[in-house]
Amino acid sequence: MIAVLAGGVGAARFLRGLMLEVEPQNITSIVNTGDDTVLHGLNISPDLDTVTYTLAGAIDPERGWGLENETWTAMGALSRYATTRPPQSRAAPTWFNLGDKDLATHFYRTARLAEGASLTQITAEIAQAWGLDLQLVPMTNESVQTVITLAENCAAGSAGTDISFQEYFVKHHHSVAASGVKFVGSTEAKANGLDILASADSILIAPSNPLVSIAPIRSLAGVDDILAKRRESVCAISPIVNGAALKGPADRLMTELGHESSVVGVAKIYAPICGTLIIDHADAHLASSVEAQGMSCVVTDTIMKSPQVSAALARTALEATR
Amino acid sequence: MIAVLAGGVGAARFLRGLMLEVEPQNITSIVNTGDDTVLHGLNISPDLDTVTYTLAGAIDPERGWGLENETWTAMGALSRYATTRPPQSRAAPTWFNLGDKDLATHFYRTARLAEGASLTQITAEIAQAWGLDLQLVPMTNESVQTVITLAENCAAGSAGTDISFQEYFVKHHHSVAASGVKFVGSTEAKANGLDILASADSILIAPSNPLVSIAPIRSLAGVDDILAKRRESVCAISPIVNGAALKGPADRLMTELGHESSVVGVAKIYAPICGTLIIDHADAHLASSVEAQGMSCVVTDTIMKSPQVSAALARTALEATR
Repeated sequence: MIAVLAGGVGAARFLRGLMLEVEPQNITSIVNTGDDTVLHGLNISPDLDTVTYTLAGAIDPERGWGLENETWTAMGALSRYATTRPPQSRAAPTWFNLGDKDLATHFYRTARLAEGASLTQITAEIAQAWGLDLQLVPMTNESVQTVITLAENCAAGSAGTDISFQEYFVKHHHSVAASGVKFVGSTEAKANGLDILASADSILIAPSNPLVSIAPIRSLAGVDDILAKRRESVCAISPIVNGAALKGPADRLMTELGHESSVVGVAKIYAPICGTLIIDHADAHLASSVEAQGMSCVVTDTIMKSPQVSAALARTALEATR
Repeated sequence: MIAVLAGGVGAARFLRGLMLEVEPQNITSIVNTGDDTVLHGLNISPDLDTVTYTLAGAIDPERGWGLENETWTAMGALSRYATTRPPQSRAAPTWFNLGDKDLATHFYRTARLAEGASLTQITAEIAQAWGLDLQLVPMTNESVQTVITLAENCAAGSAGTDISFQEYFVKHHHSVAASGVKFVGSTEAKANGLDILASADSILIAPSNPLVSIAPIRSLAGVDDILAKRRESVCAISPIVNGAALKGPADRLMTELGHESSVVGVAKIYAPICGTLIIDHADAHLASSVEAQGMSCVVTDTIMKSPQVSAALARTALEATR
C-alpha cells in the first residue's frame, strides 16, 4: 500500500502519474481539508474535489480546478443578490466561483453530511461515483480551518486580522502579505488514516504547498509522530522549483513566514519527518544543501507537463522509499 | 392597505392583477410557507419564489414556476450521485427540479438564514432584489411543514404514512390518495402579519388551494380569529371552477378529505372567516348554494388568462369588501 499526503492541483497531477505506476486499489491519499469552506450553505472541499476531478479526467485543464466544459449560470444569477444584500451581510459571495455541474458535488456532500454520513464515507462515495479505484481520505472528519493572519494593512484587513484560507487564496488571489498560518480546530480533531500511515510500504508527500496544504495534515495529532518514526519510508517532492512555486503562493508564503523559498527551505520543513526530497534538475546545484539537512536528495524532472512525467516522478519517489 | 393570503401560482397571477389596480406599496401578501423544504442543504420557499418571480415578470410562463430561459445543468449533474448513493440515502434527489438561475435565490436565502436574518427580512430583500414594491411576508418565520397522510398503499408508501408536501406534490405529482393534511409545527409557530390582517382595508384570499395553501396560514394562532371578526372585509376567490382545480390537486384533495369539490365546498371551508366568495360564470348556477352558506356570492370571470382578467378580478374582489 502506498500512502500519499495531498493538497490540490500539484497532488492531483502527481496522483494521476502514480496511478499509472501502481494499481489504484493500492493507493490511499490523505487529502487536506483545511481549505474546506461553507458557501451558500454548501459544504465545499476544494482539494478533495480537485483530486477527484483530476483523477476522473474531468478537471478543467486550463484552470486546474473545477470541471471541464463548465457553465456558470448560478454564479451569474447570484450577482443580483450580491449587489442588493444589506451592507453587513456576506451572503451571495461571488468571488468564489462554483460551476453549475460542480454544484452537484457540493449538493451531494452537504446532503449526506446532513444525513449523518462522515466526510470519509462521503468522499469514498464521490470517488466511486466518478469511477475512481484509489482510496481518497479526508485528513479528518472534523472541522479544521486553515486561517491566514495578515501582515499588513491592505484591502483584505488590518495587520493581525485572520482571514479564511479561501478568502486569502481566492478572494485576494493570495497576493496579500501573511504573517502567520493557523489550523483552527486541529488540536481537537482526530486524524484519519493514521493506521494507513503506520502500515504503508511507502509514504509520499505530493508536491503541494508545505505550509498550507501539507502542514494542516501534519498539524493533526499522531501524523508527524508516525512519519518521524518511518522517515526512511517517506519521500517528498519539492513544490518549489528554482525558488518559485509552479502554482499558488508557496514561494511567497515561505518567504513571508520566515522560510527560504527554495528546495533547501522545503528540506528544512520536511527533514524531521521525511528521508528523501526529490528536486528538479533546475535545482541540482542545491542537492548537497538539501543533503546537509539530513535528507537524501534525488534530482529528476518534477514539472508534471504530462501524465508520463508524473508517472516517472512517482516511480522515482517509490524507488527512493525502497 | 390591502392584505392578500397567498399560495403559489394562482395567488401570483391574482397579485399581478391586483398590482394593476392598487399601488403595490399598499399591498401586503402573506404567503404560505408550509411547502418550504430543505434540499441539498438549501432552504427553498416555493410559494414565495413563485410569487416573487411572477410579479417580477421573470416566471416561466409555461411551467408557472421557476425562471424563464432557465437551464438545468446542476440538476443534470446530480444524476451521477443519485444513481450511486447508498440505498438508505435520500441525498441527490432529482425529482425536485431546481434551475441554475433559480439556485441563486436559494443560495441567498440559505446564507442569510445562516447569518441569523429572519425569513421575513430575507423575503423582503429578495423582493427588493427583483424590483418589487409590494410587501411579501412569509406566514411565519418558524418551521411549519405541510404533511400529507397517504390513504392507500401505493408507490409513495403504505396507508397512514406521512410524506412532505413536496414529495406529495412534485415527487408523486399529487396523484396519490390522501387521507389527511397536517401542519406540523403550526401550534408553536408565531404568525407574521397579524397586525396587517387586523388593520387592512380589505383582506383577499387568493384563488389558491384552500386545504394546502391557505389552510397552513389559517392554522397559525390568531389568523382565523382576526378573519372571523373582520369577515365582511374578507373576500375569497374560488380556485375551483366547474368542480375542478385549474391547476394542482385542490379538487382531488377536497374530495379525498371529505369536502365537496365545488364552489359550495369552498364556501363551506371559508364561510366562518370570509364574507364574500367570488365564483366563475361557469358556476353561476351554484351562487344561491354559496349564499346558503352565509356568504355573499359574486359571479365573474375568474380564469386569469391575462393580467387584464386578473386585474378585473381583483377589482371585483376589492369592491366586494367595501
